[in-house]
Amino acid sequence: MSRNIQVSRLDRAAVEDQDVEIVERKGIGHPDSISDGIAESVSRALSRLYLDRVGKVLHYNTDETQLVAGNAAPAFGGGEVVEPIYILIVGRATKEYDGQHLPVDSTALAAAREYLAEAIPELEYGTDVIVDVKLGEGSGDLQDVFGEEEAQVPMANDTSFGVGHAPLTETERIVHDAERELNTTYHADHPELGPDVKIMGKREGDRIDITVAAAMVDRYVDGFEAYDDAVESVREFVTDLARDRTDREVNVDVNTADDYDEGSIYLTVTGTSAEQGDDGSVGRGNRANGLITPNRPMSMEATSGKNPVNHIGKIYNLLSTEIAESVAAEVDGIRDLQVRLLSQIGRPIDEPHVADAQVVTEDGVDLDDVEDEIVAIVDAELADVTGVTRRVIEGDVSTF
Amino acid sequence: MSRNIQVSRLDRAAVEDQDVEIVERKGIGHPDSISDGIAESVSRALSRLYLDRVGKVLHYNTDETQLVAGNAAPAFGGGEVVEPIYILIVGRATKEYDGQHLPVDSTALAAAREYLAEAIPELEYGTDVIVDVKLGEGSGDLQDVFGEEEAQVPMANDTSFGVGHAPLTETERIVHDAERELNTTYHADHPELGPDVKIMGKREGDRIDITVAAAMVDRYVDGFEAYDDAVESVREFVTDLARDRTDREVNVDVNTADDYDEGSIYLTVTGTSAEQGDDGSVGRGNRANGLITPNRPMSMEATSGKNPVNHIGKIYNLLSTEIAESVAAEVDGIRDLQVRLLSQIGRPIDEPHVADAQVVTEDGVDLDDVEDEIVAIVDAELADVTGVTRRVIEGDVSTF
Amino acid sequence: MSRNIQVSRLDRAAVEDQDVEIVERKGIGHPDSISDGIAESVSRALSRLYLDRVGKVLHYNTDETQLVAGNAAPAFGGGEVVEPIYILIVGRATKEYDGQHLPVDSTALAAAREYLAEAIPELEYGTDVIVDVKLGEGSGDLQDVFGEEEAQVPMANDTSFGVGHAPLTETERIVHDAERELNTTYHADHPELGPDVKIMGKREGDRIDITVAAAMVDRYVDGFEAYDDAVESVREFVTDLARDRTDREVNVDVNTADDYDEGSIYLTVTGTSAEQGDDGSVGRGNRANGLITPNRPMSMEATSGKNPVNHIGKIYNLLSTEIAESVAAEVDGIRDLQVRLLSQIGRPIDEPHVADAQVVTEDGVDLDDVEDEIVAIVDAELADVTGVTRRVIEGDVSTF
Amino acid sequence: MSRNIQVSRLDRAAVEDQDVEIVERKGIGHPDSISDGIAESVSRALSRLYLDRVGKVLHYNTDETQLVAGNAAPAFGGGEVVEPIYILIVGRATKEYDGQHLPVDSTALAAAREYLAEAIPELEYGTDVIVDVKLGEGSGDLQDVFGEEEAQVPMANDTSFGVGHAPLTETERIVHDAERELNTTYHADHPELGPDVKIMGKREGDRIDITVAAAMVDRYVDGFEAYDDAVESVREFVTDLARDRTDREVNVDVNTADDYDEGSIYLTVTGTSAEQGDDGSVGRGNRANGLITPNRPMSMEATSGKNPVNHIGKIYNLLSTEIAESVAAEVDGIRDLQVRLLSQIGRPIDEPHVADAQVVTEDGVDLDDVEDEIVAIVDAELADVTGVTRRVIEGDVSTF
Repeated sequence: MSRNIQVSRLDRAAVEDQDVEIVERKGIGHPDSISDGIAESVSRALSRLYLDRVGKVLHYNTDETQLVAGNAAPAFGGGEVVEPIYILIVGRATKEYDGQHLPVDSTALAAAREYLAEAIPELEYGTDVIVDVKLGEGSGDLQDVFGEEEAQVPMANDTSFGVGHAPLTETERIVHDAERELNTTYHADHPELGPDVKIMGKREGDRIDITVAAAMVDRYVDGFEAYDDAVESVREFVTDLARDRTDREVNVDVNTADDYDEGSIYLTVTGTSAEQGDDGSVGRGNRANGLITPNRPMSMEATSGKNPVNHIGKIYNLLSTEIAESVAAEVDGIRDLQVRLLSQIGRPIDEPHVADAQVVTEDGVDLDDVEDEIVAIVDAELADVTGVTRRVIEGDVSTF
Repeated sequence: MSRNIQVSRLDRAAVEDQDVEIVERKGIGHPDSISDGIAESVSRALSRLYLDRVGKVLHYNTDETQLVAGNAAPAFGGGEVVEPIYILIVGRATKEYDGQHLPVDSTALAAAREYLAEAIPELEYGTDVIVDVKLGEGSGDLQDVFGEEEAQVPMANDTSFGVGHAPLTETERIVHDAERELNTTYHADHPELGPDVKIMGKREGDRIDITVAAAMVDRYVDGFEAYDDAVESVREFVTDLARDRTDREVNVDVNTADDYDEGSIYLTVTGTSAEQGDDGSVGRGNRANGLITPNRPMSMEATSGKNPVNHIGKIYNLLSTEIAESVAAEVDGIRDLQVRLLSQIGRPIDEPHVADAQVVTEDGVDLDDVEDEIVAIVDAELADVTGVTRRVIEGDVSTF
Repeated sequence: MSRNIQVSRLDRAAVEDQDVEIVERKGIGHPDSISDGIAESVSRALSRLYLDRVGKVLHYNTDETQLVAGNAAPAFGGGEVVEPIYILIVGRATKEYDGQHLPVDSTALAAAREYLAEAIPELEYGTDVIVDVKLGEGSGDLQDVFGEEEAQVPMANDTSFGVGHAPLTETERIVHDAERELNTTYHADHPELGPDVKIMGKREGDRIDITVAAAMVDRYVDGFEAYDDAVESVREFVTDLARDRTDREVNVDVNTADDYDEGSIYLTVTGTSAEQGDDGSVGRGNRANGLITPNRPMSMEATSGKNPVNHIGKIYNLLSTEIAESVAAEVDGIRDLQVRLLSQIGRPIDEPHVADAQVVTEDGVDLDDVEDEIVAIVDAELADVTGVTRRVIEGDVSTF
Repeated sequence: MSRNIQVSRLDRAAVEDQDVEIVERKGIGHPDSISDGIAESVSRALSRLYLDRVGKVLHYNTDETQLVAGNAAPAFGGGEVVEPIYILIVGRATKEYDGQHLPVDSTALAAAREYLAEAIPELEYGTDVIVDVKLGEGSGDLQDVFGEEEAQVPMANDTSFGVGHAPLTETERIVHDAERELNTTYHADHPELGPDVKIMGKREGDRIDITVAAAMVDRYVDGFEAYDDAVESVREFVTDLARDRTDREVNVDVNTADDYDEGSIYLTVTGTSAEQGDDGSVGRGNRANGLITPNRPMSMEATSGKNPVNHIGKIYNLLSTEIAESVAAEVDGIRDLQVRLLSQIGRPIDEPHVADAQVVTEDGVDLDDVEDEIVAIVDAELADVTGVTRRVIEGDVSTF
């Protein structure tokens, strides 16, 4: 088998060199990200359940979690959730196999509970949030066609498209890392910062504006002054982080919609705006690389919650991103890279109809010089397509 | 004020002397009792919330919890719940008072969670059981008419009826106590016995047949022999208990529907049949005295979940039972007693339209000899009608 | 086979001769009755579906419909429902038989929709009321044991109890007929009267008080005067109806809680209090004979929605009522009659463990003179026990 | 006021000139489109309700409808839905204004019912599909700040981004028009074609492959031959339509996943795959211009269901598309055009922070020659920003 891999010059300027760039990342506590996170947790848990019970991943798809916002009364020192958030896990799953009933509903609910405990620890399960589940049986035809003990490469059953990019621009890097760092290292020392951190980056020429909306947790904030300190602390942290990643002019704003005179600030009981009026659902937020990048082609496919064994959209979105990152990491002289994979119905998914890598090289680098290297990497990654499935099931790959 | 209290001869034989007597008690793990228990827990929690926040009990009514059964796969040594039980808390509550939002949904959910943890400890919250809530705002007119700091006697706003009996017959006593003892002292030493214990007593003349349906918990039962021992142990315990309470002939059967050859036994994962096909709702099981007694007049009113401050049906059912028990305890020579209270719209509830005590005296006792004593007790209990409300809120009165 | 049928003297006064009598009937538009009506409609529809598709009635049970009240803004000349009523159909049903998928959910929903259109015609389906459904699969063991082409008499699988009475007392007759006539002949000429008519009868000695709570439909009532006329018209109609049925003193009150000065009247958009704060569920209202009669023994079993092929509680409640009515109609000299049926596990249901008829004869009639006649009727009715099932499925028997 | 409008050369090849182009349109019967359509219908209905009752559009947002697929048993000549589709309308709305209760739930449900009747006529409301609603109260702060009688330009309250393109490429035009024509003129003569038509277009160089997945409605198809005819008829229709719009090589495939030998064909009862396993939600399908175009920048914002008075994402997505279309229609020599609008918090939305038009001109046309014309059109459209709101409310603008 020889794969049809094309390498060509990208017919636009590198995003880093465009005049205006817009980037966004919804943090893990954003209602859309909560939905993504639950959907993907449920997917992982079902994969494991099936592997554990019947030795292969049966048909399922859980990419439709719907979050209905609650109502809360935050207050300095600690308020309360007044009406709980309602989360409905939606999808299909195989509930019976070979005469054995499989606890898909209970497994899905357990996965959601665990995910919430980890991602939104201030949210009390069962009172601040109700989790319900509607998993249908799915199409009978597809009940048992997927996944065998030895990892075979499945056939594409749909025309689907994945796209990945690398390297990240400075603005993308800042937006991505700021959320990741705020929600990990920074949060460890600053419990007042909730997980619902939304970061918008805008670059015009050489000026980067970073706008952070950061939900503060009321029980760690005892008044306006403390709140103001908390906001300023986030601003400084993000500013430092950004300056480590760019020499451009950087300006950081945090919670710009606050109006202290009106007493209108971004204070929450649980650290997520889902407690008060912000609904969420899967596939509406970050793409597979963790960002929303209108300057770049994006797939509309929701990646979170899809079956990682045979859903081509999921696999190709994750794989094209991995390929792009590998190429950018290993090949010198790449300023911007876009990898596209397009499936062909009826062919193994490691033999896509189109696999192309479009490149903007750095000044002085000729595409011909790097083409072979790129082809080799793309080829190797495609050959290991089932590795994506494995890593997804093991939880080593983030989907949003 | 002088209350209109009548004492008369009951125009039938004492139940103890009737030819055939039927009595039933659904244990606390029965799906109808779970619904009753949650409804009453939610009611208590809302009463306390209102007292705590606004100093009086606002309008609410939560007497409609619906339980939708799950699906389970019990197995010796420990099986699993496959589809969770779904419980919907239904009712009305005041959600806003004097500009303050009151967390009625969260409070109701917390109460249900705590109740389940105590009553059905094997049931894992959030995976074995989903609890959802639909509490409407209720009628605007009634929003704030109830309960003031000093306990005033409310006016009757409905024609409602309560009836109580005492003393319990031997059969009633056995049925009642058997469930209570099995679910407390016996269970302490026998974790294999689940809380879903349903007891039916039938007396024909001087023979009492007790039929027990007892859900066994699979993880404490490792095989048929252990199951058989568990059943036999319950049978012996109930037989001993019954013989302590009667000199009549007693016969006890446990899990008579079992068919060992078919492998059909009453084995459960969680100790309640709600896990597998048995739905439940409020007001369908035990009456306010904890029993179902077709030989005696019964009120159809659901007692559990009703507002204890102003719901006459609830108050009169509990109060008539308390009055009957007081009279039977304090007055000698009473073989059977039935107390009826009927409200009169627009009058304080301590002045019922009808308050009558109908009595079967023991041989040699004349009704005239005890009438004054009875009237005095009825009068005193009516005078303390708000005590019922207080005891209900404090959780000192069982409603099912 | 010779059935064990006992006839004895009832050890109490005839209800007609007791001092105080209380009777209640919730009209078809009452939230509990709506729940009963839907549950029974769904049951009938499933029975027919199974007969139509597989030639026998498969396992099901739909006796748990829960109604969550809505919110409405009635207004003279026509108001609107603001928040819809939510109805959840709950139960178990066999969804697959012999490889064939059976549309039990759609059938249940269609039955509910048709029932509502007929019973509460002012209620607009889908906007004034949402109907949802949760029908589980039920216990696998029971999947296909019920009902064969030729109507066999099933075995009792539970200890269950049914009780019936006849003839109705005057008060019972008035309460029952008043609701039936108001909701049929009267309504035909008076569209302003909604189906939620609740009637309470209280007799003390020879005085009968009838209290009617009648929901008026706002679009047929253009002001207070029209409302007052509507109320007075109901009062007159019920008064006349009562006087046709008794020579006792009769007093009729309609909508006594109205307070014209406060503008508080019983005006509705749809003719049922379910639109505004009154929840409902199955088995909480009328017993199988259409009445709530605390003076008489009652079964707690919900009759509506149960499977009519094999649910002994349902069959025995309906059958005992039919037997009592037959005896009272055909045998002269019966003042009060109570028929009890008690099942015996493992025996055909036409051979109850206990079948007794307890009688109060009229003055001058000796029990011995009518005993044989009574036994013959009881025997014949028991022999035709499957006729109850057939009539229930055909919709010829009312269950509430 | 002078708006900051920039016109520049687009730094890439026109999409029409790129090597590979991918385009997709989900037809109105696709589960994601059903969700979009209901969300937008509900939004329009709420806008009208508010205008009708209080003279201005109050705060609401209904962009989260979740569709849970049903289960169906299609059959030649007519099958049936076995388990209904469940649709949950999610969002926030103002339910009370100036003491007046507003029927937002009932209005939302009525809008959904009407939309479904029109868009998916074979779907029987209430049995094939259950529609439920959860509309929260939303944030109190925002209750009444939007929309006054005279259309004022609102302030931007968020940083949001909209992007529009014109003219459509040949492939885009074919994909778009094929669905529109199939679902209107073609359907009028071919009732067997259901509304769930999904069209994927792929162009490589000068070859265009169109793949159509078309749900056939079983009651109009009496066997395999009729089905095959129906598929072939769609193929011919789309082929002709495509050839009218391009001189490139065109290849059309319809229902390529069919396998006649296995009896696996795309036959449905209701004309939508939502009846069998395909869930759907808002904002996962077509962008505001009706297409999914990975070759072009896209906004992740869901447009359907958002409040058209003040949701900047919705307004800017629709407006940028309208601007692009106006420019392409009125200015000669434009080969590809991309219009971007970026809001600035606290400024009127007709004064965006960035409004740029990036252009690929046709050969021989100089950007300078058309710049003024473009600026004038952009300026005029921005000046009429409230016109977008009006057209959305009147239903003149499609959002998906």
